[in-house]
Parts: sequence; C-alpha cells; structure tokens
Amino acid sequence: MDQTTVTVPEGFEDLLTRPLIGHLATVGEGGTVMSNPMWFDWDGRRLRFTHTKVRQKFKNLHHEPRLALSIVDPNDDQRYVEVRGVVEQIVDDPGAAFYQRLREKYGRTSAPIRDADVRVVVVVRPTAIFGRAGATAERPPTIVRGKRVPT
Amino acid sequence: MDQTTVTVPEGFEDLLTRPLIGHLATVGEGGTVMSNPMWFDWDGRRLRFTHTKVRQKFKNLHHEPRLALSIVDPNDDQRYVEVRGVVEQIVDDPGAAFYQRLREKYGRTSAPIRDADVRVVVVVRPTAIFGRAGATAERPPTIVRGKRVPT
Repeated sequence: MDQTTVTVPEGFEDLLTRPLIGHLATVGEGGTVMSNPMWFDWDGRRLRFTHTKVRQKFKNLHHEPRLALSIVDPNDDQRYVEVRGVVEQIVDDPGAAFYQRLREKYGRTSAPIRDADVRVVVVVRPTAIFGRAGATAERPPTIVRGKRVPT
Repeated sequence: MDQTTVTVPEGFEDLLTRPLIGHLATVGEGGTVMSNPMWFDWDGRRLRFTHTKVRQKFKNLHHEPRLALSIVDPNDDQRYVEVRGVVEQIVDDPGAAFYQRLREKYGRTSAPIRDADVRVVVVVRPTAIFGRAGATAERPPTIVRGKRVPT
C-alpha cells in the first residue's frame, strides 16, 4: 500500500473542517462521469464519506477507486479546495455511528435513519490537494499544491 | 451527431438559471478524476462554460468529452441537480464576449480580463439530468430524471 499522503495547502484547512458540502467526482463502469454533493469528514490525513452498499456510487468506487472532491467557500466563490484521492478501504458502519456523527456535524439530526443496516464508511487517501484563491486587483488567481508526506 | 437532449426535471429549473456555482467532474489523460467549481450558462438545451485553451481541463475535455456538473441549492443543501453530458463543441470566444456575459450573471465585472485572447466556450449537450430533493418527515429523498427529447 502506498504510504504517503499530502498536506492541505496552508490557509485552506477551514474548507475541510467547516460543515460544507463537497462535490464528489466518480467514474462508473463504462466510463460514465458523475458528480454528486456529499457530506464528508476530514481528520487531517483521510477523507471519509458515508454511503450505502446498495447504491450506484458504491459500485463505481469498486470499479474505479480514483475520485476527486471540490469544496467552495460560500463566502467567496472564487476560493476553493480540490482533493484528488483514491479509495483506501470501505468498512461497515455498525449502528450507523459514523453517519450519525456526520449528521451532527451538518446539523441534520432530526430525520430518521432509514438505512442503518447498509451504511458503510468510504475512506479516501488523498493523492493531491489544491487550494485556489481568486484574483485580486494586484494579482491573478493563485493555485497552491499540498506537500507529499509520509502517512 | 446525436440529435437528442434531455429536459430538466420539473421544479429544478431554478438551479440551472440562478447564479450558482456548479462543480464539474472531468477525467484527464491516464484516468485522473478531477472536480472543479465552475460558472456556467444554461439556455434550456445546452450548458456552456468559459475556459481557456491553455489549461489542463481543456486538454482533458478533448481526451474524454464526457463530464458531469452538480449544483446544490444554497438554501437547502439536500436539494440538487446533476447534469451528465458530453462536450459537443469548443468554440472561440472573440473579445471574451461570452466570458463577459457570465461575469455579469455572477456579478463579477470589476476584475480585469487577463486572458481574453485564449478564451473559449465549451458547449455541452446533456445526456441525463437528475433532480434530487431531500427527505421530509413523510418520505425519503426523491430523485427525478429528465425526459429525453429531440434537440
């Protein structure tokens, strides 16, 4: 297993820890390209998504483990982070505990959990992280890349 | 050329006409999956993006013309549209006129246009459009698919 990960470019950490919606790019069998909004968790080294075993994206990620997630700052739509990565593992989520934790992060605890028995955690190892800041009067847009580090 | 397009599912048209950020999924040479926030225009039948000839995504779209764009309602993050489509053509944008029109849609007319001479318009024919509404107390989340129609 590849034992490296990448850092978040300095000054962009907030986009990975605030309760923002990430947009997840995946590729299905036959090459269909898909984009879906997702809740996510970031622990400083891995991205985690909640998903169910029964949905199409779960099958996609088995077929093509590479993916990308982009997150825009709602206060400045020219500022964003893109995480490219690879699915490292998909593990069961007994009792939907991880799902419940994400719901709390996103302030959505009222709806019933209808599919706790098929919930999984998708664990993603980043392979590249980019932070983009918009143009100002003084300079064009800038893109900064995170550094590769041992995991 | 394929002479069909697809309709926007009823009740989701606003997500394609409001000045919202779309997240564009593309696939690069070698299969790298990417996700990037983008301004877009929708005329009821085609999506249009502004881009430059010199950037990586332009090369990606020549290599793999399939893409997807997802747009979340900022007032209800469980409500979104996903457009899957294919690049139909890439045309020059003389004087960056299309770029300027998009800047006006998004209320960003003050910054200088630094790259007018390499601006292009990426024209996308939708192949599938999905509208997703979040769960309520009465029902689980719903996904509606647009209808295929002659172009």
